[in-house]
Amino acid sequence: MSDIVADLLRELGPSLVAVGVDIPARNHSDWVGVAPAEPLALVRPRSTEDLATTVRLCAAQAVPVVAQGGLTGLAGGAEPRADWVAISLERMNGIEEIDPATGTMLVKAGTPLEVVQQAASEAGFFYPVDLGARGTATIGGTIATNAGGNRVIRYGMTRQSILGLEVVLADGTIVNALNRFLKNNAGYDIKQLFIGTEGTLGIVTRAVLRLEAEPGFTSAAVCGLPDYPAIVELLKFARRKLGSGLTAFEVMWPSFYDLMTSKVEGVRPPLAGRHGMYVLIESQGTDEAFDAPRFAAFLESAFEEGLIEDAAVARSQGDVQAFWKIRDSVSEFSHVLGPDTALDISLRVAEMDDFVEEANVALRQAFPDMQSVSFGHVGDNNLHLNIHVPGLSKQPKPEIQAIVYELVRRRQGSVSAEHGIGTIKAPFLPYSRNAAEIGLMERLKDALDPKALLNPGKVLIRR
Amino acid sequence: MSDIVADLLRELGPSLVAVGVDIPARNHSDWVGVAPAEPLALVRPRSTEDLATTVRLCAAQAVPVVAQGGLTGLAGGAEPRADWVAISLERMNGIEEIDPATGTMLVKAGTPLEVVQQAASEAGFFYPVDLGARGTATIGGTIATNAGGNRVIRYGMTRQSILGLEVVLADGTIVNALNRFLKNNAGYDIKQLFIGTEGTLGIVTRAVLRLEAEPGFTSAAVCGLPDYPAIVELLKFARRKLGSGLTAFEVMWPSFYDLMTSKVEGVRPPLAGRHGMYVLIESQGTDEAFDAPRFAAFLESAFEEGLIEDAAVARSQGDVQAFWKIRDSVSEFSHVLGPDTALDISLRVAEMDDFVEEANVALRQAFPDMQSVSFGHVGDNNLHLNIHVPGLSKQPKPEIQAIVYELVRRRQGSVSAEHGIGTIKAPFLPYSRNAAEIGLMERLKDALDPKALLNPGKVLIRR
Repeated sequence: MSDIVADLLRELGPSLVAVGVDIPARNHSDWVGVAPAEPLALVRPRSTEDLATTVRLCAAQAVPVVAQGGLTGLAGGAEPRADWVAISLERMNGIEEIDPATGTMLVKAGTPLEVVQQAASEAGFFYPVDLGARGTATIGGTIATNAGGNRVIRYGMTRQSILGLEVVLADGTIVNALNRFLKNNAGYDIKQLFIGTEGTLGIVTRAVLRLEAEPGFTSAAVCGLPDYPAIVELLKFARRKLGSGLTAFEVMWPSFYDLMTSKVEGVRPPLAGRHGMYVLIESQGTDEAFDAPRFAAFLESAFEEGLIEDAAVARSQGDVQAFWKIRDSVSEFSHVLGPDTALDISLRVAEMDDFVEEANVALRQAFPDMQSVSFGHVGDNNLHLNIHVPGLSKQPKPEIQAIVYELVRRRQGSVSAEHGIGTIKAPFLPYSRNAAEIGLMERLKDALDPKALLNPGKVLIRR
Repeated sequence: MSDIVADLLRELGPSLVAVGVDIPARNHSDWVGVAPAEPLALVRPRSTEDLATTVRLCAAQAVPVVAQGGLTGLAGGAEPRADWVAISLERMNGIEEIDPATGTMLVKAGTPLEVVQQAASEAGFFYPVDLGARGTATIGGTIATNAGGNRVIRYGMTRQSILGLEVVLADGTIVNALNRFLKNNAGYDIKQLFIGTEGTLGIVTRAVLRLEAEPGFTSAAVCGLPDYPAIVELLKFARRKLGSGLTAFEVMWPSFYDLMTSKVEGVRPPLAGRHGMYVLIESQGTDEAFDAPRFAAFLESAFEEGLIEDAAVARSQGDVQAFWKIRDSVSEFSHVLGPDTALDISLRVAEMDDFVEEANVALRQAFPDMQSVSFGHVGDNNLHLNIHVPGLSKQPKPEIQAIVYELVRRRQGSVSAEHGIGTIKAPFLPYSRNAAEIGLMERLKDALDPKALLNPGKVLIRR
């Protein structure tokens, strides 16, 4: 038994420390499974103090650690190595306080996103971060990856909903930075260091979330448009006509729309005809009496301006959900498309369709019968491409990434809009960040984790 | 002539470097003027390269530098010392690009806030950061201080409107981190290091701003309420009934409202009677047809619920401006109140009125005839107190701060909601941040500015 396992068992006891076959296979990797491995031990702390003890013991033996939340990450960020210790936050789960006067929630990092959403709703509020893995993904994981999702156009990334954090540093120090105020300019805003840095600068243990007012009414429509330039115009038009009511602008290329509406069980095409492009538009407001007419007027004038060819408008909240099911069925890709490579890119809004075309041409040269599906949170600059190459026992992910990211580099885009860098994109970070930027990131890593023991090699390949 | 002045004159020429009497007195301090001083030189670079050269030369001679924008700061953050070099960004002024498809603006740091607001508006957008000093304050200054202002409840602090930055580091390195995307999770979000750190970790030279859709219609009302508990209830009610339309909730205690509506030229009381509390509520939307009825319905139900006693509703955009003039006349304090000490505090919403009472009792013990005026962005946790002690040749600022901040400390509040720490609040930072938080701030400062040459002693008293 290695020294560190003996130390952990002695200090924390066997109920908190699993070894060997007692470590569930799911903790060997995250959703993408780059190089699954059984770590030296899996620690499941019950408290911040347990977690700090774990980190301190590992630091003393120079053993790297990785924090694990819901393990739904798409970049290998939560994957352990064989000579590391994995720390699962699953027992640090629960909501500690809701302040109704300000609209804030204090929550433990291992709490699933959906539990937070429901508790907010029960208290008359709304936690706006939302994504398909809501039932499994934890608040801590969404903070570590600065998760995006469906309503970024209105509410921003996770960063925007975080007021305060408690974190454990690389040496086991606990930092309580649980700010509860919407405004607080007392010194550096140190919580920013731990949002979106994928557990490489510290481990988030608790958070204060900013809650929003619960929307009283939701409008939605699926629209058919002639082409991508009409999408760009419609986005500007929707921003002006729906204002801050615009909560989603989810664009679907025909490759995506046709696949989902023909192959996914329970999903049918909401529009009768075929169109050059499709978009799901959602608007949230306070009251049907004021917000339904606004949405109807927006659609009507978009017709008159020739921006949309057809629209299916939700007549009920059931319709809203049915529309979202088209978009949310990305989790069905493995069934309806086959094993795939998922790409998550930022580009200028005006360039996205050209990019899709360009990427498909380049990919088809390498893989003539590849299938490409494209969709995205276009209003947030975020394009998703999912690629399937039929007839292979293993998808050529590295080759696909190399082809697509080279095109991203040329357009000064980002190789990660919302999924993070983790392991699988670390070699491509220089495609989207220059040497001075990466130098500054490395300087931060050296300052906060000088021995490179927190999730080393993730995000920054040299640290 | 000191070595550094000779170096600067040689490398940059006399048109960029002022010395002695050629340095305008306004550059000897910022708005609050803690300890005005004539610096060794005032450099007015024309470009990022000029500015980087200045910082590099100063670093070589170990001469500290301070960056200056509009000099409207309220914490001494832009004040030079006699043995420092001051760098004014006034010539790095102008808008470089607006991308209408995404809604972003690339701007030089020395551009005044109002110029940015106007350029956004001319392009059909809205830059939401707004504050009284808009005509003078620069974008760079608002970034360095993470400025708040009037519409934080809807649009957040300046941080939320910043997508990318170009900065010059302590050694003169230029870092181009001019991200243009609403989503970009490619590595650490290093721009966060330079927002709200008051020029102590780097000097911001250019920025990419996120623009919002221009509101099509603005509603506003001044309401009279019986007491502070009604304010807390009305805030919750307004969040629910106005949703994301709620753009301002500016609370005025009678001490503020009575003073402003009786003493400021051109300001009259919009309400006939007297009330226990007052609030200016603003709601922005897209269209009078939908948004005016929503605002009217909100006010009507607030009456029915007994939350408000009376309301003056704006009938025109002229009325909206007249209502704002009551709130914005804080710039008239020196005329209507006399020389004062301005306090800018964060507290839990529910505690604010108790705090005002408590602070007034404590202040009156020390200064029996002191006058206290209170108002605030209550929805953002932000309370302002302005204190005037009559009959003194110099206001007892240190004593007033010590009394009020001790009470803030006991309530775990913040000594700076939006004004920053600068020089005058640096001794009080430990009242609102614990040792682990300050230790982390110092670690960052050491990592980015190891020789403590960027605005040393500001924010962090030991660096």
